[in-house]
Amino acid sequence: MRAAVFQDGKFAIQNVPDPKPGPGQLLVKPLVCGICGSDLHTRHHAHHLASLLQRAGFRGFMDPDKPVVLGHEFCCEVIEYGPDCEKTIAVGRRVVGLPFAAGPNGVALLGYSNDLNGAFAEAMILQESAIFPVPDHVSSDVAALAEPLAVAVHAVAAAAPTPHSAYAVYGCGPVGLFVIARLRHLGFGPIVAIDPDPHRRAFAEKLGADMVLAPDAARVVEYWEKLGAPVGVSDASALTGAGKRPVIFECVGKPGMLKMIAEEAPVRATIVVVGVCMESDAVEPGYMVQKELQLRFSFAYTQDEFAEAVRMIGANPEPLAPVVTGHRPLADVTAAFDLLERGGAQAKVLISPN
Amino acid sequence: MRAAVFQDGKFAIQNVPDPKPGPGQLLVKPLVCGICGSDLHTRHHAHHLASLLQRAGFRGFMDPDKPVVLGHEFCCEVIEYGPDCEKTIAVGRRVVGLPFAAGPNGVALLGYSNDLNGAFAEAMILQESAIFPVPDHVSSDVAALAEPLAVAVHAVAAAAPTPHSAYAVYGCGPVGLFVIARLRHLGFGPIVAIDPDPHRRAFAEKLGADMVLAPDAARVVEYWEKLGAPVGVSDASALTGAGKRPVIFECVGKPGMLKMIAEEAPVRATIVVVGVCMESDAVEPGYMVQKELQLRFSFAYTQDEFAEAVRMIGANPEPLAPVVTGHRPLADVTAAFDLLERGGAQAKVLISPN
Repeated sequence: MRAAVFQDGKFAIQNVPDPKPGPGQLLVKPLVCGICGSDLHTRHHAHHLASLLQRAGFRGFMDPDKPVVLGHEFCCEVIEYGPDCEKTIAVGRRVVGLPFAAGPNGVALLGYSNDLNGAFAEAMILQESAIFPVPDHVSSDVAALAEPLAVAVHAVAAAAPTPHSAYAVYGCGPVGLFVIARLRHLGFGPIVAIDPDPHRRAFAEKLGADMVLAPDAARVVEYWEKLGAPVGVSDASALTGAGKRPVIFECVGKPGMLKMIAEEAPVRATIVVVGVCMESDAVEPGYMVQKELQLRFSFAYTQDEFAEAVRMIGANPEPLAPVVTGHRPLADVTAAFDLLERGGAQAKVLISPN
Repeated sequence: MRAAVFQDGKFAIQNVPDPKPGPGQLLVKPLVCGICGSDLHTRHHAHHLASLLQRAGFRGFMDPDKPVVLGHEFCCEVIEYGPDCEKTIAVGRRVVGLPFAAGPNGVALLGYSNDLNGAFAEAMILQESAIFPVPDHVSSDVAALAEPLAVAVHAVAAAAPTPHSAYAVYGCGPVGLFVIARLRHLGFGPIVAIDPDPHRRAFAEKLGADMVLAPDAARVVEYWEKLGAPVGVSDASALTGAGKRPVIFECVGKPGMLKMIAEEAPVRATIVVVGVCMESDAVEPGYMVQKELQLRFSFAYTQDEFAEAVRMIGANPEPLAPVVTGHRPLADVTAAFDLLERGGAQAKVLISPN
């Protein structure tokens, strides 16, 4: 089969051996697969990412010196089952799933494994216990959003949102947009979305933000003060807790964001950090102590949260559709990465490997 | 009256006008008063502290260019009441209280106010609504610990501890020691206490730590792993959540602590930051995302938490007694600050202003 093989910072479309499903596994044909921020990072900084994950104790991540087939945000068609499968989803039906499968060296993280290929290929292996059927009324494009949406399901759960909370989302790339969509799906608001790029602010409005802002500390502070969630420690409403409970999502992942958010955050705000800032960043602990901020770092999702993302899409696929801004064939994977790195008017560009 | 007047980094014992209690206030005679880490910081960096608090929106903090009488960890004797008081505590009885009182420019933070003096003086004003009587069986020395103990009551509450949690306390200065005492009072453990100074580790053992360590990443990791709270992301028990819930207190407040704790912390640990690091500090957000750490910055306490600190002392004053390591008269306040800055064998040195 053909696959986009990544090595030494470059993609090459190559013929590679067809994968064979083992016990409890199935062979699928990727229809579409999104490009994740981690994929963009891997292209230029694969060793850095591998080293970070290794330090965090994460096993099963690829050796960045060896070839890998990326792609973990997929919607696929079932081709055939391996041995010992329940086969509750018929051959020819569409599935999404968690990017994990049993490999020769333990659990492989699909899309970041040297053993099992990801979805930037004509075929791949999935684990039957990790897949979900795609309802007929859901397009493959929107179904492929289940994986990054699950990240937002997890991040929003980490915030423990309530009807008495109010929200700010910093960064309106896909992660920020899915956080907005998830909050809206749960009926929570108001939401202010903050991004320097006007295209991204337009996406945020489409996904349900009540207000969009270019970065502007004074206007963010004003937003919170109108909600009774003052940014200054001594304000009386900060002491009485009469206002809305402030919840902030950091979906940018660049140095300086935590300091900026700390300064613009109301007293005792909950800040969920979803953006993966790979560099060292400067914070002022003494300042965050005064304001009693909470930083909750959020990563990935559980299988239940992935299932909830699939249910959410099935219940109402339309609101997520604007996030998909383009398609490219497998041969154009490099061009698709280039396009996303320029940012702005693109949100999710999907690769169509078949 | 005589007072230790602080200005331009120096203390001078001076005669100042006797304070006069206003409505709802009382005049008291400070018997003993502790020296807080914030006092030590103020001696050398008063402008820095004032600027940080101003940025956080805190009003009522002193102008660092004007004279101030420090001292906010006091046990006092009631001398006389001003007008409009309920006088439920008799003249001659001992009291502790929150360091807040109505001043000519709004609420004054006693010990950091240019309007009302703190307890490094022969007399001071307290607000009747903020005081608590000291039971007869509690020494004035231990009673004076109520204020810093309230900081620990607040910090431990922020951790939401349970019998299924396990604890690590970084830093065994007074704040760390009071956190250990508070956890023990609530019946929670096990607790490992980490400090480079052998004297401080000895204090931590006296206050109830189950194990004390000099900083040593390998031994801290071993502690957590024995409790089923692995430091590596991929460990099976991290995924099942079968082990103890890890709770960590940062009671040092120096650059580098957050990064060190992040590396030694189990996956999904709750880290309560009580130490006030006044400098910029470097963290790795991407690493903390992988481990899904939670940072809860904790500051001061509520009136209810102060009351709980007083109740805790009344119920069992003995365990806290070892924290008081010395007394100095008012004239020796500079020498007492010098002594504490050398650290080690001293924990709380109390000033006896009368």
